Amino acid sequence: MKRYLGYWQKEIDEWLQQHEKPYWEPLSILARITEEVGEVARLLNHLYGDKPKKLTEASQELDQEIADVIYALICLANREGIDLDAAMVKVLNKVKTRDKDRFKKKSSTP
Amino acid sequence: MKRYLGYWQKEIDEWLQQHEKPYWEPLSILARITEEVGEVARLLNHLYGDKPKKLTEASQELDQEIADVIYALICLANREGIDLDAAMVKVLNKVKTRDKDRFKKKSSTP
Amino acid sequence: MKRYLGYWQKEIDEWLQQHEKPYWEPLSILARITEEVGEVARLLNHLYGDKPKKLTEASQELDQEIADVIYALICLANREGIDLDAAMVKVLNKVKTRDKDRFKKKSSTP
Amino acid sequence: MKRYLGYWQKEIDEWLQQHEKPYWEPLSILARITEEVGEVARLLNHLYGDKPKKLTEASQELDQEIADVIYALICLANREGIDLDAAMVKVLNKVKTRDKDRFKKKSSTP
Repeated sequence: MKRYLGYWQKEIDEWLQQHEKPYWEPLSILARITEEVGEVARLLNHLYGDKPKKLTEASQELDQEIADVIYALICLANREGIDLDAAMVKVLNKVKTRDKDRFKKKSSTP
Repeated sequence: MKRYLGYWQKEIDEWLQQHEKPYWEPLSILARITEEVGEVARLLNHLYGDKPKKLTEASQELDQEIADVIYALICLANREGIDLDAAMVKVLNKVKTRDKDRFKKKSSTP
Repeated sequence: MKRYLGYWQKEIDEWLQQHEKPYWEPLSILARITEEVGEVARLLNHLYGDKPKKLTEASQELDQEIADVIYALICLANREGIDLDAAMVKVLNKVKTRDKDRFKKKSSTP
Repeated sequence: MKRYLGYWQKEIDEWLQQHEKPYWEPLSILARITEEVGEVARLLNHLYGDKPKKLTEASQELDQEIADVIYALICLANREGIDLDAAMVKVLNKVKTRDKDRFKKKSSTP
């Protein structure tokens, strides 16, 4: 199988392997994931929720905040020896099966 | 039943009822809870995890960060008309039943 | 100062002190908080979000799910020796100061 | 630039575009992210934390739970028109700059 998420898994691993302790302990990585999801939540609440709007910074940072979460998730996957592309294949199969009759499809016209 | 969490529920409600829109929408409050839990995670990772230590601020702020989460949870409960003391009674009953044989008790000496 | 959240802190501590290891490690408690907030998120998404509705269970469980988060937060506070009522006083002062001119007050009529 | 995360962004978009409402509202996607991170937390607490061990299921599911979070993050990015590969490039640059002197490098031997 080709590497997609695997490309980023390898990029990150090659960088971290230069450090004495490449990966944090799992519960520390989890704390980081929780912290970074909190940052995504803060921005989305400014952009779409009831939190008073800050005019500028929010939108342009959202890409970074989402990528920060993915970075932390990739660290966790690398530490645990998980192949994320294989996992994504399984998730997409699950979603397509589960959602088959759950959401309304666009009607096909004759 | 006496009011414990109910005391804070009432304090917060009396303050917020002075505003034109006392409570945010539920998904906005949830985003706030997520953001505040992220702050708790950041501090705990400094204090107990693999995140490089910042020497000063962390410990003295943890009390505030935990209370920020509880504040947001109380806002959600108030908006939904939930009696948190009644809910805590049920949770404690659940925990005591579930954990009866799950964790090791201190041995009682004769 | 009277005990409000302190009442529940004491109730929970008296129960847990009967166990050989009363409190989990902080990062384990944090993982539990994250898990329980996830349960709140699941229910709110059913009730107010785009997640397909389940008709029955959601609403009556929300009180339990919120209290589960508070239970875990109290465990963290107890382990860290935090007085939550004192922390709530500080949070309410902060909120009242910060929000003084931030949200629209109900207009007072003469 | 080549597509790595972009491959999965496109796969997911092609699937969801067949639905009448391809993407949820942002705060609903956020609630889903929070829920799925909660599932990761639950498993990691079983595997590495103080939560009593369940012997079997945990390890083999972690790959799925991490991928569930990434799936939800990709939905958010797609809805917001974010190029995740470009965002990852920026995150890796940030990490490499920030961490340059922050963590101990493996000593290079002559």
